[in-house]
Amino acid sequence: MNLFARMLRPANVGYAHCDGPCGVYDPAAARIAAEAVLSMEKKMAALGNSAADEHTRARFIAIKEQQAELAKREIDILWHDYFKPEHLGAVPNLHEMFWNAAKLCSKNKTENDAANGEALMSAIEEIHDAFWKTKNRDIAFYRANP
Amino acid sequence: MNLFARMLRPANVGYAHCDGPCGVYDPAAARIAAEAVLSMEKKMAALGNSAADEHTRARFIAIKEQQAELAKREIDILWHDYFKPEHLGAVPNLHEMFWNAAKLCSKNKTENDAANGEALMSAIEEIHDAFWKTKNRDIAFYRANP
Amino acid sequence: MNLFARMLRPANVGYAHCDGPCGVYDPAAARIAAEAVLSMEKKMAALGNSAADEHTRARFIAIKEQQAELAKREIDILWHDYFKPEHLGAVPNLHEMFWNAAKLCSKNKTENDAANGEALMSAIEEIHDAFWKTKNRDIAFYRANP
Amino acid sequence: MNLFARMLRPANVGYAHCDGPCGVYDPAAARIAAEAVLSMEKKMAALGNSAADEHTRARFIAIKEQQAELAKREIDILWHDYFKPEHLGAVPNLHEMFWNAAKLCSKNKTENDAANGEALMSAIEEIHDAFWKTKNRDIAFYRANP
Amino acid sequence: MNLFARMLRPANVGYAHCDGPCGVYDPAAARIAAEAVLSMEKKMAALGNSAADEHTRARFIAIKEQQAELAKREIDILWHDYFKPEHLGAVPNLHEMFWNAAKLCSKNKTENDAANGEALMSAIEEIHDAFWKTKNRDIAFYRANP
Amino acid sequence: MNLFARMLRPANVGYAHCDGPCGVYDPAAARIAAEAVLSMEKKMAALGNSAADEHTRARFIAIKEQQAELAKREIDILWHDYFKPEHLGAVPNLHEMFWNAAKLCSKNKTENDAANGEALMSAIEEIHDAFWKTKNRDIAFYRANP
Repeated sequence: MNLFARMLRPANVGYAHCDGPCGVYDPAAARIAAEAVLSMEKKMAALGNSAADEHTRARFIAIKEQQAELAKREIDILWHDYFKPEHLGAVPNLHEMFWNAAKLCSKNKTENDAANGEALMSAIEEIHDAFWKTKNRDIAFYRANP
Repeated sequence: MNLFARMLRPANVGYAHCDGPCGVYDPAAARIAAEAVLSMEKKMAALGNSAADEHTRARFIAIKEQQAELAKREIDILWHDYFKPEHLGAVPNLHEMFWNAAKLCSKNKTENDAANGEALMSAIEEIHDAFWKTKNRDIAFYRANP
Repeated sequence: MNLFARMLRPANVGYAHCDGPCGVYDPAAARIAAEAVLSMEKKMAALGNSAADEHTRARFIAIKEQQAELAKREIDILWHDYFKPEHLGAVPNLHEMFWNAAKLCSKNKTENDAANGEALMSAIEEIHDAFWKTKNRDIAFYRANP
Repeated sequence: MNLFARMLRPANVGYAHCDGPCGVYDPAAARIAAEAVLSMEKKMAALGNSAADEHTRARFIAIKEQQAELAKREIDILWHDYFKPEHLGAVPNLHEMFWNAAKLCSKNKTENDAANGEALMSAIEEIHDAFWKTKNRDIAFYRANP
Repeated sequence: MNLFARMLRPANVGYAHCDGPCGVYDPAAARIAAEAVLSMEKKMAALGNSAADEHTRARFIAIKEQQAELAKREIDILWHDYFKPEHLGAVPNLHEMFWNAAKLCSKNKTENDAANGEALMSAIEEIHDAFWKTKNRDIAFYRANP
Repeated sequence: MNLFARMLRPANVGYAHCDGPCGVYDPAAARIAAEAVLSMEKKMAALGNSAADEHTRARFIAIKEQQAELAKREIDILWHDYFKPEHLGAVPNLHEMFWNAAKLCSKNKTENDAANGEALMSAIEEIHDAFWKTKNRDIAFYRANP
């Protein structure tokens, strides 16, 4: 049984980025949203107090809110559905890593500081590394146990 | 400084059910959604194969999906924002408890079995207990340290 | 035929909080949203004019808007689907009660005053009472007419 | 003071189709959604049992559900925000008219019958008539009382 | 084969306003949203700097954003699904017309000027004309080729 | 003036993946959604007719619908906001390329065939190439004209 067929077997049908069982997980989705959060924070720091800037600021706050929410949702999907108990050996701090990232999304909502956006980007990079480390192990395992 | 004033202090402004800092957390929201999931599973088990039943089943699957998603989101909000590191002493299995509940929401999506709905209701009851245990401690603490 | 079986009969399949036929109605959902509206109004009254407070205010206005919308939606579901013509005897002012509550949700959107939030909480309490009064009558009726 | 200026006065700022105070009410939005519901019901009646038809039916049920929900929401906006106590003289059956229309939206969800779609179209036409009757009276009033 | 039957044939099942194959296209939906955008821009121009006005402005910016997004979505649906290659003869500037309208929706988001709302209304009127011109041709064609 | 500063200048503030001016465009978002569409189509082809498979199929149809919609939205954002008239020289078939991709999203909704998913992936790859070709030109231009 080849690798592709195995990944389609019911036992391997897992939830994925669409929060359905598409089997397509990609930490890039959380990263794109976090980049938007950080971009908004940086651009807001450069705004003044003209009427046009006030209008822009109101929009940027709303966009930051939505994108931080989206980043949180994408992070949650990986924690809920991609990571499984058998991954805890390879990623022993899994829960703290995701708890921290989710709390950083909230912090980016309540505050308006590019340092929070930078911290979120780092937290997502850490998730990215854990994702690929375990993903590559799983692929190697299936190749070795066809 | 009285209890109410303390709860309004910036340091106590936390995220809440609206995923904003309304300060209104209530595990009832997750429970109501889980009840709807369970109700759909029970009602689907009683459906036959008439055209009308097929139509109803298609709708119930969609409603189960939405409500399981909603339950997951409400559970996440409590984990992300209500619970904080200082609660880990009182709830040492916090992360496993929420991971399990989130995975049960996904299981209620991918499968169609009232046993999953019952398991989710139990998982939410456990969260409910942890919530009130810590909430009542916090209130007692603020009363003792006005 | 027992009570539970009756409630599952097609004729009793009604819309519910999920706006699907889950049969789970609960005025608590509207109340939680209204509490969040009121919380936002109270917290906004305590904000000043610093840049951080301006940022917070913009977020609180948006959250108030969403939660008032959610409260309106939850109120509508009870009016549309839970209440039926046979309940008009027990609740003769049904339509005025819901019209008033819905208009209060709109008022909480257009204005920023905790008095509106308090009025909405009272209107939802009135709906809560009408709900349980009729619900308990229906249950008693089914018990007496098994 | 001319008519346009009057309509912009705070006292005339009312909620509208966007559920915000845009002042743009139009029963056409509910009608378009109801037409889509009816279209789905008619097209489903013509489907057979091939795999392609089953796929199409699943999609049409979902679209019918969304559009019935949208019709309900558009109807609610008119009831909540456009109509005011001073219109009850001209439209004495206002509440029953809207209650009926909202319940028809739910009926179009739970059942799959073009007769329900036709009934909903009629109910919306009745709302359309009440809307324009009162709207034209208000315009005439403002013209006569500039 | 009569006109109605032809329009139900699979080859004529096209996407529509619901972004599903309801066959109900209506440029009125985009126009209603654009009217709301313009209304917000005009009302914002009349606001001052009181606390109540600041609250109202924050809401109006958010409503403008949502309605401009909705207008864009409705415009896209016509471009994606109603218009087909065979219409390019009758509407040679089709793509530029829609590209311009979509870009105007974005401009109404980023800026706050009623001139943008007026320009969007004109762009939608142009789409409205192209829609009815081609729609009436198609109907005439089916009548002539039953 | 360095490249980064230039990109933050108002004249360069463009809409982006968040449909706000975050300046973060990435065709990866459309590609992830299209991968999910294709995955659903492939998995549906492997399903049988058991009750469990019927349940799964109903869910997969809904997920395919959502992800095709999401792919369409992400494609639209690039067309609406990233691409500008000055790019037409480098990408003369811009409008046809996007029109085709949007129509393929609709086709993936109305039909259930992995060939459509493959075609959509190719169309997005073409957009990806046009995106990076123009993006790299813009960056080179700003570097050469600091």
